[in-house]
Amino acid sequence: MSEKFNELKPFLEKSKAINASLVLFSWDNETLAPVDAMENTAMIIEVLSNEYFNTIMNENVKRILHEIEDGISNSSEELNNIEMGIYKELKKNFEKLENIPASEYSAFSSLIPRANKVWAKARENNNFTDFSDSLKKIVEYSKKFAKYRSKDGQHPYNVLLEDFEEGFTMDVLDDFFGKIKKEIVPLLQRVTEKNNEIDKNYNNRNFDVNKQKEFSRWISEYVGFDFNRGVLSESAHPFTTNLHNHDVRITTHFFENNLESAIFSTIHETGHAIYEQGIMDELTQTILGEGTSSGMHESQSRFYENVIGRSKEFWIPIYEKLREKFNEELKDIDLDKFIKGINKAHPGFIRTEADELTYCLHIIVRYEIEKMIFNEEADILELPKIWNDKYEEYLGIRPENNSVGILQDIHWSCGEFGYFPSYAVGNAIAAQLLNHIKKELPLEECLISGDFKRINDYLKEHIHQYGKLKNTNQILIDMTGEEFNPDYYINYLKEKYEKIYEL
Amino acid sequence: MSEKFNELKPFLEKSKAINASLVLFSWDNETLAPVDAMENTAMIIEVLSNEYFNTIMNENVKRILHEIEDGISNSSEELNNIEMGIYKELKKNFEKLENIPASEYSAFSSLIPRANKVWAKARENNNFTDFSDSLKKIVEYSKKFAKYRSKDGQHPYNVLLEDFEEGFTMDVLDDFFGKIKKEIVPLLQRVTEKNNEIDKNYNNRNFDVNKQKEFSRWISEYVGFDFNRGVLSESAHPFTTNLHNHDVRITTHFFENNLESAIFSTIHETGHAIYEQGIMDELTQTILGEGTSSGMHESQSRFYENVIGRSKEFWIPIYEKLREKFNEELKDIDLDKFIKGINKAHPGFIRTEADELTYCLHIIVRYEIEKMIFNEEADILELPKIWNDKYEEYLGIRPENNSVGILQDIHWSCGEFGYFPSYAVGNAIAAQLLNHIKKELPLEECLISGDFKRINDYLKEHIHQYGKLKNTNQILIDMTGEEFNPDYYINYLKEKYEKIYEL
Repeated sequence: MSEKFNELKPFLEKSKAINASLVLFSWDNETLAPVDAMENTAMIIEVLSNEYFNTIMNENVKRILHEIEDGISNSSEELNNIEMGIYKELKKNFEKLENIPASEYSAFSSLIPRANKVWAKARENNNFTDFSDSLKKIVEYSKKFAKYRSKDGQHPYNVLLEDFEEGFTMDVLDDFFGKIKKEIVPLLQRVTEKNNEIDKNYNNRNFDVNKQKEFSRWISEYVGFDFNRGVLSESAHPFTTNLHNHDVRITTHFFENNLESAIFSTIHETGHAIYEQGIMDELTQTILGEGTSSGMHESQSRFYENVIGRSKEFWIPIYEKLREKFNEELKDIDLDKFIKGINKAHPGFIRTEADELTYCLHIIVRYEIEKMIFNEEADILELPKIWNDKYEEYLGIRPENNSVGILQDIHWSCGEFGYFPSYAVGNAIAAQLLNHIKKELPLEECLISGDFKRINDYLKEHIHQYGKLKNTNQILIDMTGEEFNPDYYINYLKEKYEKIYEL
Repeated sequence: MSEKFNELKPFLEKSKAINASLVLFSWDNETLAPVDAMENTAMIIEVLSNEYFNTIMNENVKRILHEIEDGISNSSEELNNIEMGIYKELKKNFEKLENIPASEYSAFSSLIPRANKVWAKARENNNFTDFSDSLKKIVEYSKKFAKYRSKDGQHPYNVLLEDFEEGFTMDVLDDFFGKIKKEIVPLLQRVTEKNNEIDKNYNNRNFDVNKQKEFSRWISEYVGFDFNRGVLSESAHPFTTNLHNHDVRITTHFFENNLESAIFSTIHETGHAIYEQGIMDELTQTILGEGTSSGMHESQSRFYENVIGRSKEFWIPIYEKLREKFNEELKDIDLDKFIKGINKAHPGFIRTEADELTYCLHIIVRYEIEKMIFNEEADILELPKIWNDKYEEYLGIRPENNSVGILQDIHWSCGEFGYFPSYAVGNAIAAQLLNHIKKELPLEECLISGDFKRINDYLKEHIHQYGKLKNTNQILIDMTGEEFNPDYYINYLKEKYEKIYEL
């Protein structure tokens, strides 16, 4: 019997429907809405956001949650697996906000859109001090909220880290990033010394955008995106979003003088989309109906984009198709040159443009700075110098200015502290999955024969279908017998780059 | 002081926001959503629809409305012009539903989507009896609801007619349609006899769809659509929708073998859009923030599409632009041939494809049948024969089957009785406006010089800005000094077609 649980249903259904509206408005704003619409539409979105908040955060839901808790402990309430998952997820979300005074949360919420604008302007003007006051306020709120929510002496930064990835505390990440610094920083130095040996100037030739669009759509479907249950559009920054498992939407962007950008953005978002399209029907309209965490999500996008998408086996059956489209532009670039080109590593300032080898170093800079902030070890005004010093230490380059340095990412202006590590965790999980999948499937054969169904079905069976019903470590243990283990990633990067650069 | 009115605000804001979500979902479904999304998305839409209904139809809103009413009568509540309009509109909507038992309304609401499907299938299979049971049920509900809502002996059909256009009762429409039948049916006969003299076969040559798209976008902007506050997309059936006056969206459709279809659909929807973009900022986020009625809306779309859009003056400055795009296809078609072609009248079975002269005859058939239904003068099963007889009488042609006859329109399967006349009213108002505007503006000069700003500004000043703050007759009286008068339309059609056909 799950009578009490049934009392939650109207609240769950309503919050799901309003959230779907917010998702659709957000999609529409990024892809289609006219330029002058935002001011009026923002008022609509504000009302919907408040309604969403109030649908969950109210005395009725609180009472029912307590009654379910009592019912479970005295065995009058029996929840099935999915109901239990929904109950726990709702309880987690409820408690996350319950301990924060409503007035402070409201002040913080209205600070964020303003801080976004201040940050965008500061980045444009390359002036960190324009943003530092806003950043200070956001940091103060984030610290306070984390302290309100901290249980049993939990470190405030761990509270935030675990919002994004359960179990991935500073202990886990210090170990992970320590290994990266020890192994990858020196590897990058060796790679950088040999970088003149790989030519990828061809990538900046003129590639007709309409042909790129055709190829992007084709490759997305080739890899496994189901266009009967999804949409591919364009936006300034590629992203994936979904209403449910039958309506998953991805975007990409096209540049005439950059062939790789659209191709690998598309494969990356397709990876995210295959995850969302694979969530089981019983979950898709519930709060468990999305990928379990940003880290696990990123592991899927990176698996498709990098681990298989930049492999030679992936391109063996399809490189000629690309070359047919760009006959003239790629005529002197054979498959081997192309594979070297798309795997070339090069330290740069901008995280979102980073290659596979340098990506995690960008994350470490942010992680270490966030830790300093939450350990009260750095003043906000000192951060640009700290940022630049760390870039010099790990990547061997010093940002020319703050716009390509500490001001490059939107996350902090959104109050998203603890988010960045999930990108690195995702990359590492992708390598861990590769190691495991190679034992389960003839992966190289699948790629050479274009049999993505077998790969996708395997990932669906072990990862995608569960949505948020399992967390990352549960998925990894059930699938591979092992928790998160970054060693696979270190080995993967070393092996791959030593081969490409013939070190 | 309008203290009580302020108590309505949270309900008004929430209903507006949820309605905007429903508008966006509807737009998205027609233009972009993947084919397999609908089943899941329908569940979201159902929750939002119920929430919308409950936001307005509840005891709090009822109480506040009564208190405002009392406050107005004892002068403790003073509403400004806009507040009074909002109060009246909300009260009207509230009372419309208040008198219908909730269980019956709910049964009717869930019948409609099923009836839509039954109708679509019946039309596909050309089998009226497959649909007749659903139609009977919808008719029974519509009659019952109209009787519940009828005040002071009002005829049930008048209740429905006035839902769409205040003051446009059977008396007004009988007079209007009587004049049409008397004057236009014989005119059409004379036109039909001379129809071989106008050649428009050129319209079915091959016209590159991409070039058509470019021209549609161009002409929409030329006429006055503001693309900073709007979007033009594609859908199976062209339509206009809006989130507010800064986000108005139109669609069109393209056929390789029909040049006119996209051009005039685009101008038609642009007319609707200019109306919505012109609504004043103070109204746009309220329940008064849309065109005042379907009839007045149609008057604007028809004014742009037909009254000015098919005039020679309109095409004088731009026909060469069209010809440049379709150099080969239009090389033997000079401006005069084109103007005759786009104004050719030809009796056909399908309302949505009808020309300006025959359009209202299609409406009269539907109006007379609806009247018979609500006067209990016809059995549902007899309707196909009645339909066909009336087509023969007014248009001189007898539908070959019910798919191109009584099954062609979706409206009745949606329970929309009383809606069809507003199309005819719109056409007639467009002609009434022409008569008046010619006295106020040098209309022909504006068209020849492409000065749409002057035309659009005039319509905005006298019609568009008011949204639902004035009803159709108030707008006409304030603008022209006269209520709805169909004589202008009769004269307009006679004059126009006598000239084109040299009768």
